[in-house]
Amino acid sequence: MATTTATLHHVKNLDLADQGRKRIEWANQSMPVLQTIRKEFIKHQPLKGIRVAACLHVTTETANLMITLRDGGADVALCASNPLSTQDDVAASLARDFNIQTYAIKGEDNESYYSHILAAIDHKPHLTMDDGCDLVHLLHTKRQDALEGVIGGTEETTTGVIRLRAMAKDGVLRYPVVAVNDALTKHLFDNRYGTGQSTIDGVIRCTNVLLAGSKFVVAGYGWCGRGLAMRARGMGAEVIVTEVDPTKALEAVMDGFRVMTMIEAAKQGDVFVTVTGNKSVIRQEHFDVMKNGAIIANSGHFNVEIDIPALERTASSKRATRDFVDEYAMRDGRKIYLLGEGRLINLAAAEGHPASVMDMSFANQALSAEYMVKNHASLEKKVYSVPQELDKRVARLKLEAMSIGIDRLSPEQEEYLASWSEGT
Amino acid sequence: MATTTATLHHVKNLDLADQGRKRIEWANQSMPVLQTIRKEFIKHQPLKGIRVAACLHVTTETANLMITLRDGGADVALCASNPLSTQDDVAASLARDFNIQTYAIKGEDNESYYSHILAAIDHKPHLTMDDGCDLVHLLHTKRQDALEGVIGGTEETTTGVIRLRAMAKDGVLRYPVVAVNDALTKHLFDNRYGTGQSTIDGVIRCTNVLLAGSKFVVAGYGWCGRGLAMRARGMGAEVIVTEVDPTKALEAVMDGFRVMTMIEAAKQGDVFVTVTGNKSVIRQEHFDVMKNGAIIANSGHFNVEIDIPALERTASSKRATRDFVDEYAMRDGRKIYLLGEGRLINLAAAEGHPASVMDMSFANQALSAEYMVKNHASLEKKVYSVPQELDKRVARLKLEAMSIGIDRLSPEQEEYLASWSEGT
Amino acid sequence: MATTTATLHHVKNLDLADQGRKRIEWANQSMPVLQTIRKEFIKHQPLKGIRVAACLHVTTETANLMITLRDGGADVALCASNPLSTQDDVAASLARDFNIQTYAIKGEDNESYYSHILAAIDHKPHLTMDDGCDLVHLLHTKRQDALEGVIGGTEETTTGVIRLRAMAKDGVLRYPVVAVNDALTKHLFDNRYGTGQSTIDGVIRCTNVLLAGSKFVVAGYGWCGRGLAMRARGMGAEVIVTEVDPTKALEAVMDGFRVMTMIEAAKQGDVFVTVTGNKSVIRQEHFDVMKNGAIIANSGHFNVEIDIPALERTASSKRATRDFVDEYAMRDGRKIYLLGEGRLINLAAAEGHPASVMDMSFANQALSAEYMVKNHASLEKKVYSVPQELDKRVARLKLEAMSIGIDRLSPEQEEYLASWSEGT
Amino acid sequence: MATTTATLHHVKNLDLADQGRKRIEWANQSMPVLQTIRKEFIKHQPLKGIRVAACLHVTTETANLMITLRDGGADVALCASNPLSTQDDVAASLARDFNIQTYAIKGEDNESYYSHILAAIDHKPHLTMDDGCDLVHLLHTKRQDALEGVIGGTEETTTGVIRLRAMAKDGVLRYPVVAVNDALTKHLFDNRYGTGQSTIDGVIRCTNVLLAGSKFVVAGYGWCGRGLAMRARGMGAEVIVTEVDPTKALEAVMDGFRVMTMIEAAKQGDVFVTVTGNKSVIRQEHFDVMKNGAIIANSGHFNVEIDIPALERTASSKRATRDFVDEYAMRDGRKIYLLGEGRLINLAAAEGHPASVMDMSFANQALSAEYMVKNHASLEKKVYSVPQELDKRVARLKLEAMSIGIDRLSPEQEEYLASWSEGT
Repeated sequence: MATTTATLHHVKNLDLADQGRKRIEWANQSMPVLQTIRKEFIKHQPLKGIRVAACLHVTTETANLMITLRDGGADVALCASNPLSTQDDVAASLARDFNIQTYAIKGEDNESYYSHILAAIDHKPHLTMDDGCDLVHLLHTKRQDALEGVIGGTEETTTGVIRLRAMAKDGVLRYPVVAVNDALTKHLFDNRYGTGQSTIDGVIRCTNVLLAGSKFVVAGYGWCGRGLAMRARGMGAEVIVTEVDPTKALEAVMDGFRVMTMIEAAKQGDVFVTVTGNKSVIRQEHFDVMKNGAIIANSGHFNVEIDIPALERTASSKRATRDFVDEYAMRDGRKIYLLGEGRLINLAAAEGHPASVMDMSFANQALSAEYMVKNHASLEKKVYSVPQELDKRVARLKLEAMSIGIDRLSPEQEEYLASWSEGT
Repeated sequence: MATTTATLHHVKNLDLADQGRKRIEWANQSMPVLQTIRKEFIKHQPLKGIRVAACLHVTTETANLMITLRDGGADVALCASNPLSTQDDVAASLARDFNIQTYAIKGEDNESYYSHILAAIDHKPHLTMDDGCDLVHLLHTKRQDALEGVIGGTEETTTGVIRLRAMAKDGVLRYPVVAVNDALTKHLFDNRYGTGQSTIDGVIRCTNVLLAGSKFVVAGYGWCGRGLAMRARGMGAEVIVTEVDPTKALEAVMDGFRVMTMIEAAKQGDVFVTVTGNKSVIRQEHFDVMKNGAIIANSGHFNVEIDIPALERTASSKRATRDFVDEYAMRDGRKIYLLGEGRLINLAAAEGHPASVMDMSFANQALSAEYMVKNHASLEKKVYSVPQELDKRVARLKLEAMSIGIDRLSPEQEEYLASWSEGT
Repeated sequence: MATTTATLHHVKNLDLADQGRKRIEWANQSMPVLQTIRKEFIKHQPLKGIRVAACLHVTTETANLMITLRDGGADVALCASNPLSTQDDVAASLARDFNIQTYAIKGEDNESYYSHILAAIDHKPHLTMDDGCDLVHLLHTKRQDALEGVIGGTEETTTGVIRLRAMAKDGVLRYPVVAVNDALTKHLFDNRYGTGQSTIDGVIRCTNVLLAGSKFVVAGYGWCGRGLAMRARGMGAEVIVTEVDPTKALEAVMDGFRVMTMIEAAKQGDVFVTVTGNKSVIRQEHFDVMKNGAIIANSGHFNVEIDIPALERTASSKRATRDFVDEYAMRDGRKIYLLGEGRLINLAAAEGHPASVMDMSFANQALSAEYMVKNHASLEKKVYSVPQELDKRVARLKLEAMSIGIDRLSPEQEEYLASWSEGT
Repeated sequence: MATTTATLHHVKNLDLADQGRKRIEWANQSMPVLQTIRKEFIKHQPLKGIRVAACLHVTTETANLMITLRDGGADVALCASNPLSTQDDVAASLARDFNIQTYAIKGEDNESYYSHILAAIDHKPHLTMDDGCDLVHLLHTKRQDALEGVIGGTEETTTGVIRLRAMAKDGVLRYPVVAVNDALTKHLFDNRYGTGQSTIDGVIRCTNVLLAGSKFVVAGYGWCGRGLAMRARGMGAEVIVTEVDPTKALEAVMDGFRVMTMIEAAKQGDVFVTVTGNKSVIRQEHFDVMKNGAIIANSGHFNVEIDIPALERTASSKRATRDFVDEYAMRDGRKIYLLGEGRLINLAAAEGHPASVMDMSFANQALSAEYMVKNHASLEKKVYSVPQELDKRVARLKLEAMSIGIDRLSPEQEEYLASWSEGT
């Protein structure tokens, strides 16, 4: 599966590579759609000669995407899209075993984080592959020098797409980008089932709290939020949802969840998780009324959903208690526990989305990269959705891999659906 | 609430009007959004002088919509949109107590059904309000004479919208129509929570079968299908889903349902319900392999989802056993039970969607009617979605009626969501 | 299936017998275990010459039990165990078609109710078959004259067993009784899955309220209560549980339900259902704080769980709005809706437990009747559980009827389970 | 909280004690009932002068129980009840900081395991506290010399209770034992909610597989099994249950799970977890038909539920892939993954039951120890249940700690429940 030439890299410890490689192989087993695409990439070399700068969570699943791109002919540089989400053994193996430039160290400080993105930009990419728009942002601000060769990009996450659309609207986006997140086989699955399970996993690993019987507050009822709410209920929690959108709030109510403002939820909750894509969703006024022992985490893209500076100011002291658990002592004696420094808890304290769900997201990434190479000339400098036929193809491949058959429309049925003359 | 002048009508029995009136009042209690709109209509008379021909399921909820339109100044004629869905007591009360022309008798034959639609067309409507597009279809084929005065219409259901879009595509649609079904506060709620509960209700009323431990097959995983699957599971059934769309099929799998082809499901199922919007979803090849005692029903708009002619041909005999239950004896001794003659089971054997959910759908109808009167001059002859601000307003009014508060974005948060410069 | 000799009876209308008979046959299809027992009864005549007085809900399922007893050689008289639960068509058919003395009319007043029980006692039973202990109670108080010939009895329900145990404890019980309710295949299924589904059914038929998003209060978390709570959640309600037992309350919490006192729940609930076996669970202090539009029902055995006299006293007026819905207007303008006059809502407004679940309960009844005839001589005047081997047999027959195979212990496994020497 | 005298011990590394201590404190926060009991123990010293030999999973929760016993006056020696379940940092802290003799090292071989139990027996206990009966078994076979001073014991788990009852039946048990597992506040919670969550946690930590959409086979539908099945469904899996008891199998069916024999399930499952208390539940014939990639784990007490020797014999090779994951390559190319060497996966790969649920189990342990000291003279050499008043007290304390109020019976209600004269 691998080559052994060492590559440009900045990783924690190459000695971790053996373990990383085994784990990459483990993830590969749960990524049958990407496997199929990889076989085609090997055969047809659609990315031949393309330099890719990828800014993604450096996990076992991402590793399999990088390998797929490489096997499709690309020359790949990879940096982390979050300072806490890197799996150091995976980074080591990518650098040592797979000839992929890798710049990522778990727990890196902000300076290193940005220096790693800059290293990826130094790769002079034709294609950018981003998760949260940090690489694209840097490219459009401090490194416009490297913009010239870029033919297009892809973006993985909701937050990044929001930023890109804002850039396009302001007329500053300099090349077309495919919003992979828009693919149904991406956001309906990854955001819902992936975030759902892995966030629960992260919270439990950090705390080992019993969710059954707890009051679990989910801020945001988008795809991530409903995935999380569904799973928290599945673990026996009484789930409270907060929202700003009235329609989503109503859906949460009809799904049987309690809906209230955060200021009300703050008084009742045992565990809080933000998944809004917004900032300061939990803030001073909420810390002030929380119960002793309240646990707070974030599973949205950036660590701004919880106003941590406010928490720092309010607390009389702070100490680490368990891995990824910081105890903030309030002046009135209450203690509030912040998990994973407010960063994506499923990546900070667990392993991120399961490979099986990333299989679909990354199949869309790989196919979108190919699409961009083929079609960039005819695209404008804006944000595009994943073409529907790619999206459907991913779904079909996944069902086949699970040995699940579905019905097909008969010609008579297709005609019926297209007609308007048959009635009661 | 009512006037007492008798009106043009064709209903089963005016003596049922007292009971109908009480039931209309009962539904009204669960329709606070429509109540609010009605108060405004009374004040501002937005439909003053407008003749409306409405072809809808004649239920207590529809009655409240009709009264709201009337109170907004409209002159209303109502006919049934399905031969089995009329509540005769409601029809009687509308005719006797509310000055609304009503043409609807439960169990009417096809001829009466169409004669009732024609009677509504004879009302020379400015506005049509349709549920399934039968009225619009008749108007565009046999009654083009009445097309002239029509300024616009609204359509309630998915099936109707599909037909209208096909008409618009073929260039034959003669006036603009608002697809009420497209409103989030309509299809996300009515199709999911309304159809979910009322279909279960219809099946149980017909059969009194224990759903716990039964194998319950849901054909179609659209909004109606997922509402039904969710509720069938909630009653303890083992739910099997069939689909033609690979993405929806995958969602069903990830939601924990079994997904298979109908030919496989047919061998295993105890209860089958179609909610696809398509035809012949359960057909000869499926009847052939069903278990003895299999129960079949439809909750999609038209009674074509089950191929009843095929069932009739295959059976050696047929008899009614319970209300709305026909027993088909197969030649090999197996018995198959068809509920409600394959018509919308939630309306045929139960009372249709609960008032609380129709409250939102019909609030959209009332607001869309007002919108059409105001804006028809600037609209093209095609299908329009409900304007987003109307949709959101319905959601807000509903939450208020339930005394549920939600968060509001702070200016700082709104700015954050609109910007692209804040990153990691 | 039937004989045509007319029999002693007091039923509403013999003309309903045709419909009743069809419905009895329909239920029979879902009662495969009872069918198997009936075949054996026909062959072996275990109840030859035994007179049975049965006081049960007169439903299609009970009809099949009565027919089974008759086919086993018994001479049967049947009266209702609740004034509202009789299905008049079934009573008619039993009397006309099946040679079973039947005394039951839906809606009978208290006087008729007791006169019907007395009529059953006049049958001079050897065996009593009771549901709630009213027949046994009358026999031990006003009709001790008829006690002499009684060799034993069976009791169907929790409430009756509690009364019988109190009688045994006080030394007044005059013959042995098998507590059918104690059978696992009875109370684990009938109380949980039967009451769960049929109570939801009763509430929806009465009101057609949308349960999704409603606050549904379940008083009591015994087997009935947890069945109901599970189903109410399954319909999308936010479920609140009240309890007096701390262990059960904790289970409800861990199952993800909200638990609080009734006085708190009363302020929040939209729908309330009592299933406690206790009295005055909802009373004056609760009516005083309920929301306008609150709906109250009972699914426990007796109509004392809601303090209806207090409600009557408090209300300024009362009127019927829909079938089985009484509107009580409070002096402060609020309206409270009482369903089914506070009687078992699943029998008053729906059809009671589905046949499939009664199949097991009544299989236990039939086998317990046989057991009592065989073993009464060696039994004391107390309450006995259903012998475990009968109970297991019912479970095995039910699984077979559903074509479900389960594992069997190997000899090696049986030995392992019986030993204490194998450890870590 | 601690003393600093070093104690007799055999632990992995005393340097881990700091971390262990913090984690013990973390667990303490979720154990409010045990905290309350500890305060009373400190005051009343009910275990003054009592030597305790405890053979338990050495976790943070057990540490808090040990500290409570010590604070009640006991002199405690602790050894592991499973070779893989020890948390080395906790063992280190107990030995270094809390003056508790501790003999436990994670991953110890069978010889060390038994030598540690012998070391605990060398402590000459008055009381034994066992989890699985290994200590009691050794005491009754190889170390009868130490039996003399023992006044009684407690046993934590189902498996141990089965073994003890077998010993009592054979007349070999030499002192009374309280079956803590029989307490409702133990087995209803710990086995169900504790095992449910922590087993899911263990499986996910080992594998990071997506449970949504997977086929998850649960062998055994006892309290542990139903807890696990409930949670697996809650994570979106399609759950298949296997059973040997027909009544439990039927309950699983009615709860909406698929039930089948293991030989059928083996062909379909993606993940298998045994929780039966039996041996060889998954064996040769099942390995032979499993799908490629099948994952197998055990969450029952002993590692005999999966026939690992058969798996070893069948496989052509074996290798470790991830922590706690062994890959067995079958001769036909299939791979089967065994987690945690078939030992309790929730302790081997995760942290065992959450503190909040162990709070109740260990409150029962502490109160049962006190009870045994007070009452041993009047008890026979057999297995006793936890006295009901202790059990209820634990439930009340837990509810209070969660600020949950419940109703209390009024005198009128108590009288009603005790009477038999009020009827219809």
